[in-house]
Amino acid sequence: MVTGNSAPIGVFDSGIGGLTVVHELERQLPHERIIYFGDTARVPYGPKSPATVERYSREISDWLIGEGVKAIVVACNTATAHALPMLREYVPLPVIGVVEPGARAAMRVTRSQVVGVIGTAGTIASGAYVRAIHAIAPSARVVAQACPLFVPLVEEGWLDRDATRLIAKEYLEPLAAAQVDTIVLGCTHYPLLAPLLGEIVRPGVLLIDSAAETAAETSRTLREHGLEAPAPSAPLVHRFVASDAPEHFLRVGQRFLGSAIDRVEKVTLG
Amino acid sequence: MVTGNSAPIGVFDSGIGGLTVVHELERQLPHERIIYFGDTARVPYGPKSPATVERYSREISDWLIGEGVKAIVVACNTATAHALPMLREYVPLPVIGVVEPGARAAMRVTRSQVVGVIGTAGTIASGAYVRAIHAIAPSARVVAQACPLFVPLVEEGWLDRDATRLIAKEYLEPLAAAQVDTIVLGCTHYPLLAPLLGEIVRPGVLLIDSAAETAAETSRTLREHGLEAPAPSAPLVHRFVASDAPEHFLRVGQRFLGSAIDRVEKVTLG
Repeated sequence: MVTGNSAPIGVFDSGIGGLTVVHELERQLPHERIIYFGDTARVPYGPKSPATVERYSREISDWLIGEGVKAIVVACNTATAHALPMLREYVPLPVIGVVEPGARAAMRVTRSQVVGVIGTAGTIASGAYVRAIHAIAPSARVVAQACPLFVPLVEEGWLDRDATRLIAKEYLEPLAAAQVDTIVLGCTHYPLLAPLLGEIVRPGVLLIDSAAETAAETSRTLREHGLEAPAPSAPLVHRFVASDAPEHFLRVGQRFLGSAIDRVEKVTLG
Repeated sequence: MVTGNSAPIGVFDSGIGGLTVVHELERQLPHERIIYFGDTARVPYGPKSPATVERYSREISDWLIGEGVKAIVVACNTATAHALPMLREYVPLPVIGVVEPGARAAMRVTRSQVVGVIGTAGTIASGAYVRAIHAIAPSARVVAQACPLFVPLVEEGWLDRDATRLIAKEYLEPLAAAQVDTIVLGCTHYPLLAPLLGEIVRPGVLLIDSAAETAAETSRTLREHGLEAPAPSAPLVHRFVASDAPEHFLRVGQRFLGSAIDRVEKVTLG
């Protein structure tokens, strides 16, 4: 096991959506090695209860700690919304979530201070984004909308279909009515729907993907803790791990990662 | 623990869909007490691998056996498709699935011997329905179609929406092209979509819900094993158990069961 600065960063998600965060980590932190865990045997987290999502997040963190990671990135909005406070108490390492970075990115670009947030049922019900935005801008108006069908639509690859357009129009209606000028894509699956969502929203509305901001926060956190990796002497090999059979992960994961995945390990938890 | 003929029947599903089978068991077997387990912490099973679905099915069966059931009804098409042969070896009790009853019901009513089967990705990929139908009618033509978005649509209660209609038309297109005269609803969620599907298919096409036939097979199986319950001396109280928080189960479950649920217990597995 490699320890200290050369140890890998642990990244987890309920499934494959968090690979959009891995893509940004690779871009911004090219010296860092990554172990990615996708809980594909228990995906999705969106409709599940806070207690269950906390339990899953703790089990995955235990496993990542056992693999010797130096920090954990919770690359799942639902897990961040329900489990981040618990993980920050429980895990003896820096833990980075996706909600605060997404909120910060949105509040940096909004002109009207009227912003929309879309996410899973669990993320929206938790109120995590509304709290994070109000911590930055107490008078901002936030319109939060659960979009529970988006994850299955993305998982099916229905990224440019009439049915998806119809569903998206219905979900985004309250945001359009409130004339938001910025929408946080509060689920790591949603960046793949950005082209379709961009057609639907009024011109000028900005769609915020928290992946880039999360990678930037990971970079800052590693620097603060003196945990940055030295330039590697050999090409970095990331590890991709799933709790269910790897076929679907391999097939669909590349769409999220933006590059090929050679190999997926299977690890059973719980 | 009650044993012998007065012991309850164990029924399980990945979530709440199997309550459509409980509804039929109540109707056909009014003397039988039921323990229903919905694996809501790990739902859905449809996109998951055979090995994972087998593991979940074994864990639930172990739990039901520990509760003293006298027989197990696998009220989930995906679990039946992937795990029934294993469970019949593993469980020292009668085990009834939903696939053979559904296939039998379809072959009893088809005139053309050209039948459609719709189900989850896992159920369709397993080929279980095609095998079950060909065991009855080797020359029947079977058009099997995975409909992975139907479960999320039903879970969201989108039973009569334009988006659902659009998606259903696309899924059913190959069945219409083959001019099937009968369609097996090969997922316990789908009976709730029957009104919408009935609008889409050609007049005269029959939609087969395996719940009634599964209850009839359960009745036959109990009789064969001399396990029928005597008339109860007090009103029967069924138990409903879920692996995730009960709120969603309570809220949505009644749509499937067709009557009110008073109480849902939570049991964590795995």
